[in-house]
Formats: sequence, structure tokens, C-alpha cells
Amino acid sequence: MTEKEKMLAGQLYDASDPELVTLRQQARIYREKVNQEMDSTKRSQLMKEWLGKTGDQIYVETPVTLDYGCHISVGEKFFANFNWTVLDTCPVTIGDNAMLGPNVQFYTALHPIRAEERIAGPEYGAPITIGDNVWIGGGAMILAGVTLGNNVVVGAGSVVTKSFGDNVVIAGNPARIIKEIE
Amino acid sequence: MTEKEKMLAGQLYDASDPELVTLRQQARIYREKVNQEMDSTKRSQLMKEWLGKTGDQIYVETPVTLDYGCHISVGEKFFANFNWTVLDTCPVTIGDNAMLGPNVQFYTALHPIRAEERIAGPEYGAPITIGDNVWIGGGAMILAGVTLGNNVVVGAGSVVTKSFGDNVVIAGNPARIIKEIE
Amino acid sequence: MTEKEKMLAGQLYDASDPELVTLRQQARIYREKVNQEMDSTKRSQLMKEWLGKTGDQIYVETPVTLDYGCHISVGEKFFANFNWTVLDTCPVTIGDNAMLGPNVQFYTALHPIRAEERIAGPEYGAPITIGDNVWIGGGAMILAGVTLGNNVVVGAGSVVTKSFGDNVVIAGNPARIIKEIE
Repeated sequence: MTEKEKMLAGQLYDASDPELVTLRQQARIYREKVNQEMDSTKRSQLMKEWLGKTGDQIYVETPVTLDYGCHISVGEKFFANFNWTVLDTCPVTIGDNAMLGPNVQFYTALHPIRAEERIAGPEYGAPITIGDNVWIGGGAMILAGVTLGNNVVVGAGSVVTKSFGDNVVIAGNPARIIKEIE
Repeated sequence: MTEKEKMLAGQLYDASDPELVTLRQQARIYREKVNQEMDSTKRSQLMKEWLGKTGDQIYVETPVTLDYGCHISVGEKFFANFNWTVLDTCPVTIGDNAMLGPNVQFYTALHPIRAEERIAGPEYGAPITIGDNVWIGGGAMILAGVTLGNNVVVGAGSVVTKSFGDNVVIAGNPARIIKEIE
Repeated sequence: MTEKEKMLAGQLYDASDPELVTLRQQARIYREKVNQEMDSTKRSQLMKEWLGKTGDQIYVETPVTLDYGCHISVGEKFFANFNWTVLDTCPVTIGDNAMLGPNVQFYTALHPIRAEERIAGPEYGAPITIGDNVWIGGGAMILAGVTLGNNVVVGAGSVVTKSFGDNVVIAGNPARIIKEIE
């Protein structure tokens, strides 16, 4: 397996691998272009090129910071407000009609917990999967390995450390169910 | 009522209304100008033009991101540190002598909780009102509908989901009173 | 004592002191240069000039926002991901092999709790000291006066309000020990 294949599969990999360095450099160039583009139609077009897969209608406010971008898939009518940040070392998959508030963060990246393994270099990750019709409040963060079902509402400022099913409002640090949606 | 009037009144409104789109575009242009202005005196002047109402002496570090800006009122000696973010779909009113740490966030915007209503489009909000002499620590967020009294201290990283009266220190997610100030 | 000496010593000081204003202006110029520099080798060189002391190998993603910069010391193989924010009114000292996720925040700055003292102007702070081999997760914030030992892991989104010793995983708001590392 290549380092990229290991990375996407959630195995320990070497982030200094030349193929991965090149992919991240391309993402930094897309970031510059997107964040300097004041025209939202042109910006959506750039986002469609940058992301792995998107619906026809997407809207992203600036700034946006994606570590790779190409490992992110979003559905129809995706909306991300100011300063969306994603570490997409593993796949990030988001359904239709997602609404993300400002400063929302997705982090698929992980390091070993034991210091001697961590400082040796190899790191790993876990995918994030979000259903349809999800609203993620401002400043919330979704961590590695989390799956959220359909129609979930994530309260502003939540830190989502585990998975939740459909039709719930979650909030807090760590996020817990605060309401079932009928 | 126009969509803008509905928005400011906290009623369901259509954010794609042309008047609102134009106001947000103007805010993006002010954002560019303010964030590229290294001279703090010129930056304060730009902020006075951008915000709805301000005291004579205000100081804002860059970057600053305001969804409209014109719905924000701040008093004398307003100070906001790096990366202040505001969704001011409803009025944001801040008294005199406010001190905001870096990465402070104000979110007046809300969406319906039920998915079928949310994805239909119309959204709403609730105002935020902050008294005099308030210090809001870095990374704290103030959510829709919150009122804070005078002399309140909001701990760094707090998520303020409900209102509090005068002379208290609040902290946590959700924020709770951790100390009364004599 | 000069205002700068008082500031670094954690005593009440006047932030409008001309020497301090000049130091902050220099930091804003470094910030512009670093954040516009797409070449990571040149960016590391700029960071070495900006920070008070660094190891030979350091890597910082953009944007980075440091209030002074010159009061920060980092060890070998320092890595900070996107949008590192530091208020270094007091010394910030970080050991070797530190890994900081995106949106990590260090705040040494404090204001008096009582409103009449706070709005009078003088402010103060407390240093932050981080051991070797520490991993700080995305969006976490480390507050004034905190010391962390070696090999500590700080969960994403944590708000670290007090000190912790070696070999622990901490998380939450406020952060608490959630695991001892053997």
C-alpha cells in the first residue's frame, strides 16, 4: 500500500511522504484562491474542483481551510459559513442539505497516545460520516470516527466525540443528547 | 414587512432576499478593507462606518468577520481582540467598556429544529444584549437570545446559552455562574 | 521597572506603553509576512526570527496570530497546525516534540475581575509552561498560569484552566484527567 492508501484506510502512515506533501500543497493553493474569491458563484466552482465530490448547489463562506479537500464529499445544498476547518486525512462524507455555522471544525486526524510512538512520526485517523439534513452550530467540532445520522442538530460549541443516530439534538463537551426530535 | 424587517424582528425570513444579499455583500467588502488595514486608527474609522452605532473610541484587531455589521451597536471604549465573529441577523447590542478576547463569537442566527422546516429555507434569530463593563474571555461564544448584565465576566471557552444578570463570573459549556462579584 | 518588565513578571501594567505598542506592531508585520508566505521553509525561517527562541526544526501552518511572538519559546520539532493563536503577554514556554492541532489557543492575558479596576486600564497575566512530547488537540485552549508536564495529551476542544503533571490525557471544559498513560 502507498502511504496515501494507508492514510485513507486509517492505518499508521508517514505524513512526510512526497505524494501527500504534494496533495497538501495543492490544497494550500486552492485555499488561497477560494479565500481571495469574493464572487460566491466562482467560489462555489473552485470548491467543486477542490472537494472530492459535491452536489450541484453548494455555498461556502470564506475563509475555508481544508488539509487535503479531495477526501471530502458533500451532498446537495451544502452550506458552510465562515472559517470551516477540516483535517481530512481520512474520508469526510456529508449528506444533503447540511448547514454548518461559522468556525465548525472536522478533525479525522489522530496521533498515538504514547509519547514514544507519537514522536516517532507515524500518525493515523478515522473517517467522519454525516447524514442528510444536519445542522451543525457555530464553533462545534466533530472528531475522528464520529458518525451522525439524519436530521441531527449539533449545538453551537459542542465537541462531538462519539456517534449518534437520527433525529436528535446534541450539545455540550463532550456532546450528549439533549432532545429527541419527533 | 420586508424580509429584513422580519429578520430583525426574530421572525422566519428568507435569507436569499435581494436586499439582504446586498447587505451581506457590503459586509464582505468592509471585511476585506478592515482586515487589510494595518493602521489601527484607520481601521477604527472603517469599523465605525461598518457597525450600526459605536462609541467614539473603539479598537478592533484583525481579522474580524461580521455577517452584516450594520446590526451591531457597541458603546464607548469597545475592544475586540483577534478574530471576532458575529452573525448579526438580529440586533447585537453591547454597552460601554467591553473587552472581548480573541476568537469570541456571537451567533444570533437560528434554524428550525425539525429537518423538513429547516431545509425549506426560512430561518430566524434572536438578539444578543450585553451590558456595560463586560469582559468576554478568548474563544467564548454568546448564543441567540442571550442577555448579560453589567460587569459580567465570561470565562475563556464558555458557551453562553442563557441569560445572566449583573456582577457574575460565568464559565463552562453550557456556562454557569462560578462566582458572584461583590 | 518598565511596563514591559511588569508585564512579563505578571504584575499590573499599562498595555498602551509605547514600547509595548511598538512590539505589537512588529508582531502584526511578522504575522502578515508569515501568513502570506506559501513556502514552508521560508515560513519556518520567519517564525524563528519572530519567536523568542526555537529549536532548529519547526513547522507552522498559516494563519498564525501571536500578540507579541517574542515571548514564546518552543523546542525541537515544534509543529502547529492552522490558526494557532497566542496572547503572550507573559512567557509561553513549550518543550520538544510538541504537536498542536488547528485552532489551538494560548491565553496568558488576564484582567481584574472587579469592573472598576478592569476598566481603569491596567491588566496582568500569568505564564504558560508546556513540557516535552505534548499533543494538544484541535480547538483546545490553554489558559493563563497553566503548566502541563511531559507526554500530556489534551483532547480536542478542551479548556485547560489548571495545571496537570506528566503522562495524562485531559479533556473537557474545564479539562479533567480522563486517562493515565502507562
